[in-house]
Amino acid sequence: MEAYSANHPYYPQDVEIAKYSPNVSPLAVLLGWFGSIIAIILGASLVLARRIRPRIQVFEQLTLCWFVLCGFLHCFFEGYFVLNHAELPGSQSLFAQLWKEYALSDSRYITSDPFMLCIEGITVFIWGPLCIAIAVCLVRGNDLRYPLQIVMCVGHLYGVALYYGTCYFEYHYHGNSHSRPEFLYYWVYYASFNFPWVVVPSLLLVQGIRTTWDIFRAFEDVRSVLLRLGDLHGTEPKKER
Amino acid sequence: MEAYSANHPYYPQDVEIAKYSPNVSPLAVLLGWFGSIIAIILGASLVLARRIRPRIQVFEQLTLCWFVLCGFLHCFFEGYFVLNHAELPGSQSLFAQLWKEYALSDSRYITSDPFMLCIEGITVFIWGPLCIAIAVCLVRGNDLRYPLQIVMCVGHLYGVALYYGTCYFEYHYHGNSHSRPEFLYYWVYYASFNFPWVVVPSLLLVQGIRTTWDIFRAFEDVRSVLLRLGDLHGTEPKKER
Repeated sequence: MEAYSANHPYYPQDVEIAKYSPNVSPLAVLLGWFGSIIAIILGASLVLARRIRPRIQVFEQLTLCWFVLCGFLHCFFEGYFVLNHAELPGSQSLFAQLWKEYALSDSRYITSDPFMLCIEGITVFIWGPLCIAIAVCLVRGNDLRYPLQIVMCVGHLYGVALYYGTCYFEYHYHGNSHSRPEFLYYWVYYASFNFPWVVVPSLLLVQGIRTTWDIFRAFEDVRSVLLRLGDLHGTEPKKER
Repeated sequence: MEAYSANHPYYPQDVEIAKYSPNVSPLAVLLGWFGSIIAIILGASLVLARRIRPRIQVFEQLTLCWFVLCGFLHCFFEGYFVLNHAELPGSQSLFAQLWKEYALSDSRYITSDPFMLCIEGITVFIWGPLCIAIAVCLVRGNDLRYPLQIVMCVGHLYGVALYYGTCYFEYHYHGNSHSRPEFLYYWVYYASFNFPWVVVPSLLLVQGIRTTWDIFRAFEDVRSVLLRLGDLHGTEPKKER
């Protein structure tokens, strides 16, 4: 490991991190375990979904994978952070070592930053269960999925905007960077790893709003046809809303 | 005005605020102007809405007032903050004086706090125009309002949760309070003035989700009736989705 001037490798270099101990496991091992857990969870979800709803479309399978992935990350990986943030710097569990590695790109995860605790707390207790609820609706073919999907996508987009935004403004106005400057940490960990939460929720938000609006219009069309038919036959269908 | 130990009345007392000058107008005058502007905008919106859609329901008129109020506050009052935050402490315009008064309950508004700039930037450029779009949909009877209403309510709820939450965590972990301790500032300005953004979006979110889900189910009912009719007559209606 590279030698650092402070007693820890995080930025800003003068940030205080008590009881820090470097990771003991190689990164490849950590990523191998993490990737395997995710692959097993996604694989099991897909098998279950196809058994419950054999005609589930490919796009819906991909959407399911997204919400299951988010549900796992929010409830368990980020849940671990929220429950153990104070002990992270010295801990050597799988999740703690992964957080210490990621925190090289954002030290707020290792300093109990109030904004991070707040946004992650909401993520764990609201967004995590919501992602799982959406996945369940999706497998069951329940249309409640669409309004819930809109809710979740706004949550993800707002969250990632604030995540990137607070860093930008803090750097711009106070010159503080929470990320190590190396390409790997800034561009790969910080910028790229969070970018799917810009792209996917944008697509799913548009799909959710469009599907919802389509149904409202289709319902209005059907209602006006039925009203005209009712007029022809001298009866009037009950107004639905 | 009360005498303060620092050269400004804000908390925490050691926070640095350059070029601060106390408000020159009495609070009653500031509130009178602000209240009048809001009353004129809401009154004009209601008159216009009733002219365009004479049968608009009372609940929808109240919802309209909410989104017009939010649209005005986000685009103009908070827009003023985003554009002029650096000059606020020394400025004596109506909006600057109102912000200086409000900042007694949250000094982050007078210190160019990165989180505040970030969340207010999103509020001004995304949520403000969205509130106005929802108000327009509402007056026109366009059902696009419902998915947009869900989006906006999540935005408001997430925003206010982070607004309260960051303060709570900063006080809890670092002992910093951004609010003066007096009842007026903490409980009236900080706690109460923001509380409508907990209550109203919660109600409108539930209404939005419920209405959307109802329409999906009603559409499904109508579709299955039509499919059965089609079977009886030996034709099958085209599948909508």
